Amino acid sequence: MKNENLHDDLIVFDGLIISNWDESVFQAMRAGGLTAANCTCCVWENFRDTMLAIGHWNRMFADHSDLITKAVSVEDIRLAKRDGKTGIVLGFQNTSAFEDRVEFVELFKQQGVGIVQMTYNTQNLVGSGCYESTDSGLSDFGHDIVAEMNRVGMLCDLSHVGPKTSEEVIRASKKPVAYSHCLPSGLKEHPRNKSDDQLRLIADHDGFVGVPCSPPS
Amino acid sequence: MKNENLHDDLIVFDGLIISNWDESVFQAMRAGGLTAANCTCCVWENFRDTMLAIGHWNRMFADHSDLITKAVSVEDIRLAKRDGKTGIVLGFQNTSAFEDRVEFVELFKQQGVGIVQMTYNTQNLVGSGCYESTDSGLSDFGHDIVAEMNRVGMLCDLSHVGPKTSEEVIRASKKPVAYSHCLPSGLKEHPRNKSDDQLRLIADHDGFVGVPCSPPS
Repeated sequence: MKNENLHDDLIVFDGLIISNWDESVFQAMRAGGLTAANCTCCVWENFRDTMLAIGHWNRMFADHSDLITKAVSVEDIRLAKRDGKTGIVLGFQNTSAFEDRVEFVELFKQQGVGIVQMTYNTQNLVGSGCYESTDSGLSDFGHDIVAEMNRVGMLCDLSHVGPKTSEEVIRASKKPVAYSHCLPSGLKEHPRNKSDDQLRLIADHDGFVGVPCSPPS
Repeated sequence: MKNENLHDDLIVFDGLIISNWDESVFQAMRAGGLTAANCTCCVWENFRDTMLAIGHWNRMFADHSDLITKAVSVEDIRLAKRDGKTGIVLGFQNTSAFEDRVEFVELFKQQGVGIVQMTYNTQNLVGSGCYESTDSGLSDFGHDIVAEMNRVGMLCDLSHVGPKTSEEVIRASKKPVAYSHCLPSGLKEHPRNKSDDQLRLIADHDGFVGVPCSPPS
């Protein structure tokens, strides 16, 4: 028997959404049955501009409290489900907002940031992205950032991260990490996709793989 | 009968401390019987550098958890008293850290900032300081900042603020405001001190005046 109200029963978490956020987007998330989502508030921005983006999110949480709510815990996601809202987990696609200061990790956690991708396609202070010609691996500063993210409770996302840096984060992290949005190379060879060995490694370390609805172009 | 353990019974709040913070300072605060204090983490700094200063405070809260604890509520101050620690209310002596963004007020509240002085001696985006030759009063942006501080629950401090700006903050604020550290002009005529009329006005609006142990030099 077909369950036409499947989304009414499930807790559905979207591993990553980036958008020009406004009410129509939040309405679509609701209509689509999303319980919660990792919503990007930093791609290339520095500390100040990312904090300002979070300031804008605070306005949206106040203005659209009938549709969305900030989610900083599993309990918040359950409450969003109960209240018919979408829980927003603020997330970064880059560590650019941490600049060169480990102290900034905890300040962002305090603002509700729960998921941070270590690199976005290219090299940064932490490691290499998946489009770099040579992946230099996790830097010393990157090791400090992983340890601090572990300490404050922030998920390391490896989706756009290079293979060597990804492996070193998986092994360095004391908590499970994630490929929040990627596909298997077995389906399509692509710099953004992950080999069977990579997928096995993250699974063997209790990590998580999120698969988007359409493959990266 | 002399009560030699007076500080053991009282809740003692220091209206303002600025220091080169280290363990010896926290030990002295404990030895002096301080229950809690408004501790300066911004004087002239911008948004980023003030956030970094709060990052350093987070380190100190972790490293000296036997002596100090972050206080963001009255209950936190009572708990500090019970546990024999000094509650730290993070405070600014300037609105420089808000730069030109109202959104930054809530982000600092989220980090534990509870008290903010509107100006520090000179003119800024919000109003005029007590050493300006002409006090221009509370700016339009300043009115927005007072309203936002009211909304998020942050005390407006007027100690180093000019007389016209101070009066306009007292009248604009929907919540009580404070002269956290000043003396009466009746004791000594000084740009930092407040006239009887000024003291009466803040008292008539349910405000608070803190008197330091020694007059400003």
